[in-house]
Amino acid sequence: MKLYIVGFGAGDYEYMTIQAKTALEESQVIAGYTTYIDLVKDYFYDKEFYSTPMKKEEERCRWAIEEALKGKTVSLVCSGDSGVYGLASLVLELAEEYPPFEIEIVPGVTAALSGGAVLGAPLSHDFAVISLSDLLTPWDKIESRLRHSAMADLVISLYNPSSKKRSDYLKRACSILLEYLREDTVCGYVKNIGREGEEAVLTTLNQLKDMTVDMFTTVFIGNSDTREINGKMVTPRGYRIQREESR
Amino acid sequence: MKLYIVGFGAGDYEYMTIQAKTALEESQVIAGYTTYIDLVKDYFYDKEFYSTPMKKEEERCRWAIEEALKGKTVSLVCSGDSGVYGLASLVLELAEEYPPFEIEIVPGVTAALSGGAVLGAPLSHDFAVISLSDLLTPWDKIESRLRHSAMADLVISLYNPSSKKRSDYLKRACSILLEYLREDTVCGYVKNIGREGEEAVLTTLNQLKDMTVDMFTTVFIGNSDTREINGKMVTPRGYRIQREESR
Repeated sequence: MKLYIVGFGAGDYEYMTIQAKTALEESQVIAGYTTYIDLVKDYFYDKEFYSTPMKKEEERCRWAIEEALKGKTVSLVCSGDSGVYGLASLVLELAEEYPPFEIEIVPGVTAALSGGAVLGAPLSHDFAVISLSDLLTPWDKIESRLRHSAMADLVISLYNPSSKKRSDYLKRACSILLEYLREDTVCGYVKNIGREGEEAVLTTLNQLKDMTVDMFTTVFIGNSDTREINGKMVTPRGYRIQREESR
Repeated sequence: MKLYIVGFGAGDYEYMTIQAKTALEESQVIAGYTTYIDLVKDYFYDKEFYSTPMKKEEERCRWAIEEALKGKTVSLVCSGDSGVYGLASLVLELAEEYPPFEIEIVPGVTAALSGGAVLGAPLSHDFAVISLSDLLTPWDKIESRLRHSAMADLVISLYNPSSKKRSDYLKRACSILLEYLREDTVCGYVKNIGREGEEAVLTTLNQLKDMTVDMFTTVFIGNSDTREINGKMVTPRGYRIQREESR
């Protein structure tokens, strides 16, 4: 009677933590969004799988909780991290309606980190992670977060930068950011991080405004210190003039 | 002739990705901060190790680059992610001074994610990651980032919240945030994430102001929606009223 909520990283097996691998191995049942189940199916073939399409999160979480309550060990998988825009919060909310059972949240490498590593080191200093999806958040709140992040000179990682219904949202976001940031602010994006068709592009904020990206893309907006070095996006920490403290 | 910059996660072996494990296995030499080398030494015992104390990052990076240039496969290890306050940016900057060689940045689970999983799901919606260390950043910039993040209703994860010389910095940060946020804003912190002595505390912003944490602690400040559910810190995404888009 245990439910793991597992972030399995960018996609391929190697991006998973050993903790995530162990949780999936221990599970009898693995539940998740269809695309993610397809990604893990090949490596954990002796499991029972339950997949639901994208917009059925609550149903999927309830199913996983109920399987756990039957006495099974269940993993609910999320791409990237299980917390960052993942299912961990929904499960913790829903669990209030059920008898007690064990929940273990297994973190994973979210797209800001895996995409950042592909581009170079854009997130070496303070940063914000903002989703451009207004399905769950009013646009004026998203806009305020963009404005404040730009005013604070935070590097920004944008999730869900586009969808069929929101094809101009990245353009809108860039236009807002351009009120505060230089046109030549170093930016980049990575499509299909850690999967077939991975594609990384370095650009400037002004050019990014007119680019088209899809929903499988993570976008990075540099801060005033971010530079392009040998084709990589690098936000210096200032080590070369000063010294680091531990992290 | 290859240099991996490897984020190995919170500490213990299981928090490492399979990609990180493979990189370390392939390496002849592993370099890092003494404490981190001690963490990986037990699992990769047949390697050559090079460790330097905390404030010798540039020396350590140059040593690793020079070993790679001798034709060796070298891993430079960082706790958490290799990008987020890690050594990836410094290596990319220093590499300009050397002949070309192959660099691969291996991302890892940063403390915001691993600590978040211990506390519950604090980062389920837009968030900022801010270091309180003013060794590399002027305090007024840190303060501005705190103010803007609070005004934008971002969840905040604070790195380096304290040190011997900066014992009152968390108090200063909380006082600034209290100008914008409710006194009962749900907050939490995790000490020694994924290591011996792990300790998680849930509290409120007003109480956090008077708490003492050490440099091995990661702090989380909720947004206006963050709640405590069954002893966990949860920022809802709004799934229960609306539907998710993919990430």
